[in-house]
This record gives sequence, C-alpha cells and structure tokens, in this order.
Amino acid sequence: MKATIVGGGVIGGGWVARFLLNGWDVSVFDPDPDAARKIGDVLANARRSLPSLYDRALPPEGALTFHESMADAVSGANWIQESVPERLDLKHAIHKQIQEHAPHDAILGSSTSGFKPSELQDGADRPAQVIVTHPFNPVYLLPLVEVVPSALTPSALTERARDILISIGMKPLIVRKEIDAHIADRLLEAVWREGLWLVSDGIATTEEIDDSIRYGFGLRWAQMGLFETYRVAGGEAGMKHFMAQFGPALKWPWTKLMDVPEFTDELVDLIAGQSDAQSGHMSIRELERLRDDNLVGMMRALKKSGSGAGGTINSHEATLPTPDFVDLPVTVSRQVPQSWTDYNGHMNEAKYQEASSQATDRFMEMIGVDATYVASGGSYFTVESHLRFLEEVKEGSVLKITTQVLSAAGKKMHLFHRMYKDQGETLVATSETLLLHMDLNARKTSLPSRAVADCLAAFVQSHSGMPPPEGAGRYVGQSDRS
Amino acid sequence: MKATIVGGGVIGGGWVARFLLNGWDVSVFDPDPDAARKIGDVLANARRSLPSLYDRALPPEGALTFHESMADAVSGANWIQESVPERLDLKHAIHKQIQEHAPHDAILGSSTSGFKPSELQDGADRPAQVIVTHPFNPVYLLPLVEVVPSALTPSALTERARDILISIGMKPLIVRKEIDAHIADRLLEAVWREGLWLVSDGIATTEEIDDSIRYGFGLRWAQMGLFETYRVAGGEAGMKHFMAQFGPALKWPWTKLMDVPEFTDELVDLIAGQSDAQSGHMSIRELERLRDDNLVGMMRALKKSGSGAGGTINSHEATLPTPDFVDLPVTVSRQVPQSWTDYNGHMNEAKYQEASSQATDRFMEMIGVDATYVASGGSYFTVESHLRFLEEVKEGSVLKITTQVLSAAGKKMHLFHRMYKDQGETLVATSETLLLHMDLNARKTSLPSRAVADCLAAFVQSHSGMPPPEGAGRYVGQSDRS
Repeated sequence: MKATIVGGGVIGGGWVARFLLNGWDVSVFDPDPDAARKIGDVLANARRSLPSLYDRALPPEGALTFHESMADAVSGANWIQESVPERLDLKHAIHKQIQEHAPHDAILGSSTSGFKPSELQDGADRPAQVIVTHPFNPVYLLPLVEVVPSALTPSALTERARDILISIGMKPLIVRKEIDAHIADRLLEAVWREGLWLVSDGIATTEEIDDSIRYGFGLRWAQMGLFETYRVAGGEAGMKHFMAQFGPALKWPWTKLMDVPEFTDELVDLIAGQSDAQSGHMSIRELERLRDDNLVGMMRALKKSGSGAGGTINSHEATLPTPDFVDLPVTVSRQVPQSWTDYNGHMNEAKYQEASSQATDRFMEMIGVDATYVASGGSYFTVESHLRFLEEVKEGSVLKITTQVLSAAGKKMHLFHRMYKDQGETLVATSETLLLHMDLNARKTSLPSRAVADCLAAFVQSHSGMPPPEGAGRYVGQSDRS
Repeated sequence: MKATIVGGGVIGGGWVARFLLNGWDVSVFDPDPDAARKIGDVLANARRSLPSLYDRALPPEGALTFHESMADAVSGANWIQESVPERLDLKHAIHKQIQEHAPHDAILGSSTSGFKPSELQDGADRPAQVIVTHPFNPVYLLPLVEVVPSALTPSALTERARDILISIGMKPLIVRKEIDAHIADRLLEAVWREGLWLVSDGIATTEEIDDSIRYGFGLRWAQMGLFETYRVAGGEAGMKHFMAQFGPALKWPWTKLMDVPEFTDELVDLIAGQSDAQSGHMSIRELERLRDDNLVGMMRALKKSGSGAGGTINSHEATLPTPDFVDLPVTVSRQVPQSWTDYNGHMNEAKYQEASSQATDRFMEMIGVDATYVASGGSYFTVESHLRFLEEVKEGSVLKITTQVLSAAGKKMHLFHRMYKDQGETLVATSETLLLHMDLNARKTSLPSRAVADCLAAFVQSHSGMPPPEGAGRYVGQSDRS
C-alpha cells in the first residue's frame, strides 16, 4: 500500500510517520527545501514512541521517498493526504494538481481543521474523491481522525477511508453533518476563547490556566470525555437528574462570557511572554519528547481497561502478527518504551520479568491456554523464577525472546526464555521459570486439559534433543559467575 | 488534626476521604439520614484507589464520626469544609451556624463552583475566616483545588490553606482575582455550552462528542493543558508564531458559536437518552471504579516524568514516612494497585519483581546509594535474581517487604527479600538477588565508596547471626518443592 503526503509540516510529517511505521510506502510532495529534515525530526520522535504503545512489533517500515513532481509523488497511491496551510484557494489549487495525476480510486483526504468537505469539493474535477480526514497532533500517537463526508461523498468511499484508518491504528470518528470546524475544534475554540479572556482580564496566566486543566478535568477527559464524566458525577439518579441539578447553575455565567476579546498585538505579546516564562526553559524538541513519553505512559495505562485510546491500541495490537519461528518459538518481539527505564538509564529489572511474563503468556496461548481456556477456569501460575541479567537494554531497543520447554509433566511446566537485542545477536537475559496448572475456581493445582497436555507434549518432544541451556538450574551467586 | 465536613454528597464525601486517608480525624455534619451510607460508598472507592497512587504507605487513617449537632461537629476543628448545594442563601445560613460554634482560627473553606468569596463573606460574623476551596470530582484522586481569597482575606490564611492542602496531597491553585466560576469551570462551561449546541443541532451524539475528546485532545490536556500544548504545536518559532498563524483561523467561527441553546425539556431528554445509550450498560458504581482505575493508571504513568498530577504525587510521596524496623529493615510498605493485577485475578509476576526492585532501591538508599550518589556516577546493577511465588496477592492488599543481607564483599551485594501481606502475617514471596557495584560512566563494575562499604558492612555484621533463610540458594525446580 502506498500513501502520498502533500505538505510536510508537523501534521504532514505525523501522517508520514503513521503510515510508514505501519508498513506503508510513503511518497512526499513538498516544495519546502527543508521538508526532508522536518519530516526526519517528526519521524525520529515517532520511532521512539509509536512502537512503544504495543506489546507486539509493528510491521517492517515501508519505503520513504521525496518527489519534486506531483505526478511522480501520487503515482500508484492508495491514499493521498493533503496538509497544506488553511487557505481555501490554496487547497483548491493543490487538489486540482493532485487530481490531474492521481489514480481515480485513491482517497484524497484533507487535514483541514476548519473547512467543510463541500467547500473543498466545490469546483473539483472529481468532487466525490475528496473527503475531510482531520487528525490531531501528534498524528503518530493520537488515534482520533474526524472523517467528514459531504452529501455527495459515496458511502463506500467513507467506509473505505474508515477501514484504512483503523488498519493504521487510528480511531476514525465519522461526522454525520458537515459544519465549520467539525466537532473537536469547536470545543477547542470555545476553551481557547475563554482562555484568552482569562489572560486578557488578568485573572490567570497561561501556566495557571494549564494547571487548572492538567491537575483536574484534563485527567477525566483523557479517558471518558465530557458527558460520561458528568453522568458519573450525577450519581445513581442519572443524567437527567444531573442536568436538572446543574443545568441552571451552569447557565448563569453564560450571558457574561459571550463577548470576544480583541486579538490585539498586546494580547499576543502578553500570551507569548507568559508562555515563555512557563515553558521557555525547555526546547520544543524536549517538550515534544516529554509530551510523547507522557502520552505513551497514559495510553499504556488505558490499555489495561480498554478505555478510549487504550481500546484502540488493543484492537490494533490484535491485528499485528505474532512472530514466526524456526527452531525455538519466538514468543516476544517488541520495542522497549521509555517508561520501562529507570534511574540507572536502562531497562528496569522488573521489566525483564514483565517481558518474560509476556513470553510465558504467549507460549501458553500456543499450547491452547488462551482467553477462552482461562475463562473456562484453567490457567498456569508461576511458582518460581530465576533471572540472569547479562546485558543492559536501552529505551527503543527491540527485544526478541525465544522459549524452550525444559520439561513438562502432570501439573508442571518448566520453561527457559532467552531474551535478545540487536536483531537476535546479543543475549541480554535468561529467565528460567516453573509453572503449575491451576483450577481458577478452586484456586488449587490441577491437571491441564487433554488438548493442552498433548500440545505441550509435542513441544517437549521437539525440544528434547536440545542440550540443556547454559544458565539453567543455577542458584543465585553460584560460583561460575563473578 | 481534625477536619469537619459539612454536607456529605459526592464532593463532601470526597473531602472526607481525602482528609481521613491522610491521617486526619474527620467529623461529619449532614442532616441527610442516608449520609453515612453515601460517604461509606465514596470511602470504599477512595480506599482502593488513593493509596495505589503511591509507592509508600499513607499514614494510618484518622477517626471518622457523624454528628447531629453542628456544635459537636466543628468542636476543635482545624479545617471546616462546606459542600452544601449551590444556593447563596443556604450557604450564608450554614456559614452562620458554623461560625457560631467553630474555633476562630479554623479555616472555613467552601466548595462552591460559582460564587465569589466576597459574596460568601457578605454579612458573615467573621468574613475573614471564609475562603473558596473548590475541588474536582473525584476529590480523593484529582489534586486540583482552586483557592480563591477575596480582597479582605488575610494572606496568612490563604497561605495556611495552601500548606494544608499540599500536606494532604492536593495541588492548590491560588486564584488571584475573584470572578464568577473561578478558572476551570469557566473553561468547562464553554465546552458544555458548545457540546449542548452540537447535540441540539444534531451534529453529534454525547458519545461522539466524548470520543472527539478522549481519543484526541483530552490526552494532551491531562499532562500539559491548553497553552503549553499549543506552544509545542507552534514549533521552534515559538508561541507568538503559533498565535500569528492560528489566531485568525481560530477567530472565524467565533462569531457563529456565540448563541446559547435553549435549555428545554426536549434538549434534556435528548441528552439523557443519548447518555443512556452510551453508558447505560454500566452502573454508576462500575463507571466510578473504571474512572478511578484509569485515573490511577494515568497518574502513575505521569509520576515517571513528574508532569502535572505526577509531580504532585511525587512531592507528596516524599513526605510519607519510610517504614521503621526492629530486626530486619522494612524496605517496602505499600498498597497493590488494580493495574498490578492480571487475567488470573491476582498480582502479576512482574509486579513481584517490581516490588522487590523497590525494596532493593530502598535498601540502597539506606546504605547511602541515593539520588546524589547515583548522580555522582555510582550505582548497583542486579545481575541475577530468584523469585519464589508462595501466595496469591489481590488488588488492595498491603505489602510489606523485609530485607536481609546474605553477604557483601568488594563489588558484590547479595540480598534476600521477604514479601508479606496481612500485616506481616503471611509470607507471599521471597526474592534472592545478587547485585554488583557499577561505575555508571564507564558502565563497568567498580568498588563502592568507603562510606557505602562501611554502611553495608554494618548490616552484614548485624545480620550475620541470623540463620540462612529458607529458600535461599535454591535453583528453579529443586526437588523439595512439588
């Protein structure tokens, strides 16, 4: 699959990263001589963060090319994403150029934050090909895309756009009625307007306003949004009760907050100055990385419940391939997130155990101990494990773990995981672990099902010819290590 | 220290939990016969979530009492928090009743979301005692409190209020100019108004609006807020450039979005119906727990960077006591967060390793390997560890870990951690671990400083008379276990 990105700023660069890291070939058209460097900066951020969302490896990156001719850029494209500045005449001109050369069945998505699709389609050669696909910065991490068709957009095209966006890990929100600024930006503008008033009136600085968000309702909105949060606040009496109780109170200040502050040079200077005082000690690059590390950490936390963006990651992860194997099964292939590192500047010891635990989980799936089996009341519990930490592992390393069955009989399963970095070149840890099969209802040991036992026996036989691994059967501090 | 909570709804109950779980005695005045049950529900939620934010134990809970007389309730209180419904005449009447009996030096905070402190003070017996301290639901988890003094509030009282709120783990935001609805609720109202329009116009349902927030900008705001997010989006050119570029574009729709939708019965029904369709499959209790688990997970993720609420937790945690010990040092005392459990319904094996790692970190601090020592280039790396998983541990359990030094010489340090639940009654795991001292710059083994070596030697001597622990020196699958 091939995507063409027209306009390579922060948003265009984010689209490049989103497609490329999900295995698409990407061609770029941007007359800015600095485009390759700018996109390279975004890609560097994306490579350290996007794969860290997942506990499986993303597919191999596609090929990235830059083109001076639009015809070359769009040739053979399945998706063309336009992210040029927010001027209708410019977008019309660029769309015309794109449609002269692009495959007729390609989707032409516009990143516009304000224009309606019908405005973009107006006067186009093939208006039905144009649709709004409005993403959010950083595009490589935030799942939301507002997909806005017009009345003349074929529903088949909208559905195809939705499916493609899902396949690259995004959350398309189909906007059923086109309006200026779609949905999210209307909310953002309301807050922006209110924020400008607060600064303009000297009530609060930019930092105080940010604090009023991030220490409070921002944390609620990241998982539930506005209405579900209020539903919970309303309690058992329900949403209608909440609105009856708070509706009128919320109404009072409405009449006072409706003016628009003048967008004067003084206001711009005031806000820019306050923002410098608040954040000027960090470069934009440092702020971007801080933002991305926080986003990855919070989104990984949401994976646990599947709420919001966590659900999107879980769904996408389920479509990522489980690793192939030749001799020993590869049970883990994944990138190390920044949040897995500690004050020593390397992967924390507990994360070696976590990766080993993921290897055990994957091996259990391979012998039939999957979610269905666990739901039926059977599982394995780890009773003992021994880890050797042989090499440091840094943030961004790609880990691969192989699993060897040392023995298995009755309730017992004895595994040996080898953890590698550098494409399997460097052994970084071994983990030897003994598990017992459990009846989850009685919370007592029990025999596995016949199917599981048979599957496990096949592994035992296949691994029986292998020599016992170096490091197995060791106790802590055994003398061959110094 | 004693707090009196007047009005025990969701907000009042949250205040009860916030004070009580931070070791304050709490008295409650609420004529509602159901108050004790309602507060009990909030406390149950708080007990499973608030301690899970921290990697140290909170102090023992204070005493909770309910009173039918205001005089009894406020007797000896250091802080009185009023959270009665949002009617000025009611608040005036209640404040009068409180001030008749309360200590003159107690702080009288009001949870009002809309009224200015000068309005509350108007006609009060001791106006200078009254201040706005407006929290956010759930009060036991979200750190933000808007502290709003009026012109006649003594600055010493404002400062005392701020210090007390910090001491119970909150983030007081001093609002320097009193206005209707303070700061955060002005932003919330702007979004609420805009959201009502979107529903009323049939553009989007409540669920679609929530999705437009939680899959997108909600994730940005939870960590950085509005202005810092835009600063990052503006890139190296800075905030002024961002405003020059986006200011005018954001201005266009302003003129269109300024009307106020009529708050009709039809609109209320429409929103309540959509909210039922969106979230009606879960009870409010289930939604509350989902929200709290997500909040704890995201806030724990922010601890890593110290951004926003993560910084508040880190600061508060640093004030929590490290455990005392008699024989063996207690190196960990903490509650198990929900996010530490897995599909088997108990604490995941990697979290046993994480808790053991925390025990090692704490022991390292005790022998002088603290942040300063690490910054100077020395540390210990774990090279090998052996874990025995003896008992299941459930969410909410309080873990205690003791640490015994088995041996230490030269670069080596050999530790044995015992992990307990049930107030130290039940041994749930042992962790034997071998560490080597490292030169962090050379990334090579090296000798510890003389001070560290001496401190470690003192522990070796003190532990030398103890018998070797059961389970030490074992290899995985050793035959005394079946």
